[in-house]
Amino acid sequence: MDDRQTELVEKTKRTAELYFSGLPGERPFELWRSFDKDLARDLSLHITGVLYAREKIPHRTRQLVAVAGLTALEKTDELRMHIWAALNVGCTKEEIAEVIFQMSTYAGMPAVNSALRVLKEVLALREQ
Amino acid sequence: MDDRQTELVEKTKRTAELYFSGLPGERPFELWRSFDKDLARDLSLHITGVLYAREKIPHRTRQLVAVAGLTALEKTDELRMHIWAALNVGCTKEEIAEVIFQMSTYAGMPAVNSALRVLKEVLALREQ
Amino acid sequence: MDDRQTELVEKTKRTAELYFSGLPGERPFELWRSFDKDLARDLSLHITGVLYAREKIPHRTRQLVAVAGLTALEKTDELRMHIWAALNVGCTKEEIAEVIFQMSTYAGMPAVNSALRVLKEVLALREQ
Amino acid sequence: MDDRQTELVEKTKRTAELYFSGLPGERPFELWRSFDKDLARDLSLHITGVLYAREKIPHRTRQLVAVAGLTALEKTDELRMHIWAALNVGCTKEEIAEVIFQMSTYAGMPAVNSALRVLKEVLALREQ
Amino acid sequence: MDDRQTELVEKTKRTAELYFSGLPGERPFELWRSFDKDLARDLSLHITGVLYAREKIPHRTRQLVAVAGLTALEKTDELRMHIWAALNVGCTKEEIAEVIFQMSTYAGMPAVNSALRVLKEVLALREQ
Amino acid sequence: MDDRQTELVEKTKRTAELYFSGLPGERPFELWRSFDKDLARDLSLHITGVLYAREKIPHRTRQLVAVAGLTALEKTDELRMHIWAALNVGCTKEEIAEVIFQMSTYAGMPAVNSALRVLKEVLALREQ
Repeated sequence: MDDRQTELVEKTKRTAELYFSGLPGERPFELWRSFDKDLARDLSLHITGVLYAREKIPHRTRQLVAVAGLTALEKTDELRMHIWAALNVGCTKEEIAEVIFQMSTYAGMPAVNSALRVLKEVLALREQ
Repeated sequence: MDDRQTELVEKTKRTAELYFSGLPGERPFELWRSFDKDLARDLSLHITGVLYAREKIPHRTRQLVAVAGLTALEKTDELRMHIWAALNVGCTKEEIAEVIFQMSTYAGMPAVNSALRVLKEVLALREQ
Repeated sequence: MDDRQTELVEKTKRTAELYFSGLPGERPFELWRSFDKDLARDLSLHITGVLYAREKIPHRTRQLVAVAGLTALEKTDELRMHIWAALNVGCTKEEIAEVIFQMSTYAGMPAVNSALRVLKEVLALREQ
Repeated sequence: MDDRQTELVEKTKRTAELYFSGLPGERPFELWRSFDKDLARDLSLHITGVLYAREKIPHRTRQLVAVAGLTALEKTDELRMHIWAALNVGCTKEEIAEVIFQMSTYAGMPAVNSALRVLKEVLALREQ
Repeated sequence: MDDRQTELVEKTKRTAELYFSGLPGERPFELWRSFDKDLARDLSLHITGVLYAREKIPHRTRQLVAVAGLTALEKTDELRMHIWAALNVGCTKEEIAEVIFQMSTYAGMPAVNSALRVLKEVLALREQ
Repeated sequence: MDDRQTELVEKTKRTAELYFSGLPGERPFELWRSFDKDLARDLSLHITGVLYAREKIPHRTRQLVAVAGLTALEKTDELRMHIWAALNVGCTKEEIAEVIFQMSTYAGMPAVNSALRVLKEVLALREQ
C-alpha cells in the first residue's frame, strides 16, 4: 500500500469515527462486506474517504445537506444515520427539524412527516 | 388587513427580493395567479413569508439545503431558482457544486449530472 | 385575532373534523407541534384551512384525488389517513379500490399492491 | 376472434375515441407498434379496453384521478394526454387546476408548477 | 373459452409456477382478487401470461432485469418476489448482488442497501 | 503512481472505450471536470474502473440491467448513454425494447414510453 492509499484509509477511518461514532445497528459497510469484501472496501473508501472527507463545506453544513437530500427522497435508514452524524458534529435538533420542514415545499408533507418521526426516534435513542 | 397580516406581506416581499432579485423568466407566483389569484396569494405568503422567512438557519444554509433537496428530486426548474438564490445570498459556486456532488451517494449520478448542468447554465447567465 | 383569521381557524376545525373524525393514531399536527408550535399552526391552517376547505370540487372527489396521488407516490401513512377521510365523506370501498387499480398504468403494480394493503387494513379497522 | 375478444376491441376503440379524440401528436400506441405489433395490441386492449373502459367511477372522476397521479409523479407527456381527455369528457379547467393544486401537499410545489404549465399549454392548444 | 384464451391461461400458470413456486406469503393475485375477481384475472393474464411469458430474452436475464428495476425504485415487496424468481430460474446470489450493487450509480446507495437486505432475507429463508 | 493505480486507470480507459466509443455529446466526466478535476478523476475511476469493469456478469447483461434501472427511474440522459453502450457490446434493439417494456409492470407506462423514445432516437442516430 503506497502513501496515497494509506492516507485514504486513514481519512476514511477518521471521518467514519467523526460522523457515526456511537451509532447503533448494522452499518452499510458490514452489509456490503457480507456480499463482496473488495467492493465493500472500494465503496467505503470512495464514499467516506473521498466524498465525505472533502473540506469544501463544513461538516455541519454537509450533514444538514445530507438530511435535506435523504428527507426529500424519504430514505429513512440512511436519514437515521445522517441525523445521528449531524448531532455528532454539533447540529442542534432545531436546525435539523428546520431543514426537514423546509423540504415540505419541494417534496411534500409525507416526506416531512416521515423524517420528523425518524428525528424523534434518534433523539429518544440518544437521551437514554 | 391587521398588523400580523401586514407584517407577513412585508416579510414575503423582503424575502422574495433577497432570494430571487434579478432572476429571469416567469415566477411560480405568476403561474399560480393565472389560475387562481386568492390561492396564489395564500401559497406565496405561506411558502415565502412563513417558511423561507424563518430565522432558525442562516439564509446561506437554507439555500444550500434547498439545492440539496431539489438536486435529489431532480426538479430542475426550481433548482434553477434556488441556485440563483444561493448565489444572491453569497454562496460560492464551489459550495453549490459540492452540495450537488454530495447527492451522488443518496440519489445517484443522473441527479448530480442534471443539477451540474443547471448550475452551469445559471453561472453562464449571471456572467453575461 | 381578526375576523378573517377567526374564520380560517373555524374552517380548519370543521374540515379536520369532517375528514379525520375517528382516525386512530398520532396526527401529523401533533408531530409538527412536538417540534415547533407556531409552524404547526401555520401548516395546519394552510393545508386544512386553506387547501382542503376549498369548494371547487366536492369532498368525495377531493378524497379520491388524494388517494390517487398518495398511491402513485406510495406514501402509505398519509394514504391511510385519506382512505379514512374518503370513507368518512361517503366514498365506497369499490370506488377507492378502483382509483388505486387505475394507478397501475401510471405508477406500476408495486404502488397498487401497497395501496390495496393499506385499504384492506383501514377497512378491517373500521369493521371492528 | 370470438365474441368476447370482438367486444374488447370495440370497447377499446370507443374509449380511445371518447378520451383522446382530437389529441395532436404521436400516440403511445403508435410508439409501441414501431417496436412490437402484438405487444402494442395487448397493451392497448389491457389499458384502454380493460382498465379505462370500466364503469366503477364516472369518466370525469377517472380523468381527474389520472391528472392527480400523473401530476404527483411529474409525468408530463401522459399528463398532457389526460388533461386533454379530462376536457373531452367535460371537466372544467378550474376543476383540473384544483386537482393539480391539491397535489402540493403530497408531492411538493415543483410537481404542481410543472403540471400547471402543461395545463396552460393544453388550454392554449384547444383555444386555437 | 376459445383456443387463444385457453393457451393464455396455460402460459400464465406455467410461468407463475416457474417463477414463484415455493414463494411464501400472500401473492398479489390473491390481494387483487379480494377486491375484484375479474380484474384480478385480467391483470394476471396480462402481466404473467402476456409480459413474463414472452421469449425475447432468457428467463434468467428477465429476472435480473426485474431485480434492477425494483432495486432502483426501492419496491421491496416485489423485489422479494423477483429475487425468489431469479433464484428459481438459476441465477446465483453473486449475480443478483452484482445487479443490485450496479444500481448504486443510477439510484444511490440507500436503494442498494435496502435491496441487499431483502436479498439477505430471501437467502436465509431458502436455506432453512 | 503504483501498479494498482496504473492498472485501475487502464481498466477505466478500456471499459469507457468498450461502452461509450462513438457516443456523441458531452460526457459526464467532462461535466464533472469543469467543476472539480480531482473529484472527476475519483468518480470516473470508481464508476467506470471499479464498478463497470467488474466481471461478475457479462457486459451484455450489465448493459441490459443499466437500461432497466434507468428506464424505471426515467433518467433519460444516462439511459441514452447506456442504450448506446448496450448496442456497442452486442445487445440487439429487440432485447433493449423488451427490457424497457418489462418495466411497465414495475414503473408504469410513462417510464416505458419515455425510454422507447430514447431508444428510437439512439437507433436513428446510429443508422445515419
